[in-house]
Amino acid sequence: MTPPDERDGFSVTRSLTIEWGHCDPAGIVFNPRFFEFFDWSTALLCEAATGLPKPAMLAAYDLIGIPLVETGARFLRPSRYGDRVEIVSTVVEVGRSSFAVRHRLHNAGELAVEGRERRVWAGRHPDEAGRMKAAPIPEDLARRLRGG
Amino acid sequence: MTPPDERDGFSVTRSLTIEWGHCDPAGIVFNPRFFEFFDWSTALLCEAATGLPKPAMLAAYDLIGIPLVETGARFLRPSRYGDRVEIVSTVVEVGRSSFAVRHRLHNAGELAVEGRERRVWAGRHPDEAGRMKAAPIPEDLARRLRGG
Amino acid sequence: MTPPDERDGFSVTRSLTIEWGHCDPAGIVFNPRFFEFFDWSTALLCEAATGLPKPAMLAAYDLIGIPLVETGARFLRPSRYGDRVEIVSTVVEVGRSSFAVRHRLHNAGELAVEGRERRVWAGRHPDEAGRMKAAPIPEDLARRLRGG
Amino acid sequence: MTPPDERDGFSVTRSLTIEWGHCDPAGIVFNPRFFEFFDWSTALLCEAATGLPKPAMLAAYDLIGIPLVETGARFLRPSRYGDRVEIVSTVVEVGRSSFAVRHRLHNAGELAVEGRERRVWAGRHPDEAGRMKAAPIPEDLARRLRGG
Repeated sequence: MTPPDERDGFSVTRSLTIEWGHCDPAGIVFNPRFFEFFDWSTALLCEAATGLPKPAMLAAYDLIGIPLVETGARFLRPSRYGDRVEIVSTVVEVGRSSFAVRHRLHNAGELAVEGRERRVWAGRHPDEAGRMKAAPIPEDLARRLRGG
Repeated sequence: MTPPDERDGFSVTRSLTIEWGHCDPAGIVFNPRFFEFFDWSTALLCEAATGLPKPAMLAAYDLIGIPLVETGARFLRPSRYGDRVEIVSTVVEVGRSSFAVRHRLHNAGELAVEGRERRVWAGRHPDEAGRMKAAPIPEDLARRLRGG
Repeated sequence: MTPPDERDGFSVTRSLTIEWGHCDPAGIVFNPRFFEFFDWSTALLCEAATGLPKPAMLAAYDLIGIPLVETGARFLRPSRYGDRVEIVSTVVEVGRSSFAVRHRLHNAGELAVEGRERRVWAGRHPDEAGRMKAAPIPEDLARRLRGG
Repeated sequence: MTPPDERDGFSVTRSLTIEWGHCDPAGIVFNPRFFEFFDWSTALLCEAATGLPKPAMLAAYDLIGIPLVETGARFLRPSRYGDRVEIVSTVVEVGRSSFAVRHRLHNAGELAVEGRERRVWAGRHPDEAGRMKAAPIPEDLARRLRGG
């Protein structure tokens, strides 16, 4: 899913255990759970890149959040209750006010799910309370996300 | 996301209300919830196409489930607590043992999320208990899914 | 779970279908899902009692939300994928700034889960942004919740 | 919620971070999530008590699962995005084929949620495929759960 000309940037890895309630009657992870896992990983990635705990990061950059605008995943192998999996999340593109992350979930050393997402750096809308507006990613952070 | 040469097949529409617990601190639907919504819609689509309630359908076709192999979504407009949304789910491709569904979630008459997924028709693996194996979609059902 | 001297007050009933993703590898509803179902039902109950759609209700009463302070449930019979269940939610107590709701989930005519919860009528804290403070339930609404 | 004559038995502690998607538009954890957290903790407790990874434990004792028959929680303080919380889960009662666990979730050193649950040791029903039947907890495991 990553075009060959993209360069891998900032990356974080974390492990988690597949819990009983993550799985469905077929005994495998219910697919929306993977998008939860990826959401946690992107939050961790942003924390690691900014060096700030999450609420402090949102406050420091005056963000409402970093909403998804596009996501997708391919499911290559099932994951089951009790499996210990590893998710490697890597920035693969940084634009003016959005960035893309690739998530690779490995189970027993094999790629089990590959996801990709694009997120917007979203501040408060100047005119409407509670609404969001794309904001430019600060240049030094953009550089760090690109892996520079 | 639908290539122009695909022909829309069997389709179902349902409405639902965005609940408090579907939303995150930004006040908008937390993205994995959309994949839950789409999963329910595909189940409904299969029920409507087979004329069988869900557990009966799985039993009749000797299926373990219809697992996702690929999914993706674009998020065009946020949906908020109390919004009444409509999801139109349409078969856009039927292969030998897989099919693709496009989900369009409309909020207040506007397209808010467009999803797409590919699912496998998965029976029991003949050799390994608890494992799945792709099975051919019966021809009459394939015809119905194609909208014939 | 309802003491005999409590009087049933305002009540709402709704039906829902148990979805695939609600269930765990044992094929039965994963218990936290019932608390989601009950949360939706209490929201519906408040809507019906106030005559306002949910976001309008929060705005009209200047509420941040109606957070739980206590909940519990007994699980009498399992519910499975495809089951059509009915939830009857009834106000069983109304205090100055809190109220209690009993939820009875019926499956195939039999009581399957009985839950009970206490919620606080929570406005904005006058001194701290983003914090909540219990507020008195307006008397005419309290009367309606009591079934008067 | 623990009667004074109960004796604390086997106990496990784990830490977790409150994620964005755990929280609702009021910015606090959506209550069903606590029951997920407690479910993970009880699974961990069983693993630690049996010394077996989860799927192996179910297989070794010929269990379908350890379903809840009753649960409840009191919510004393809100938990928010980014909070690091600690859950102490303690066996407080062991019966013939069921046991009770108390969960105390601490946030910044203060008790934020106290939960309690009763679970059944559930094997396969001898007569009906897919159904569960309470089974006696093996005596040596019961002793360990009691903290002996």
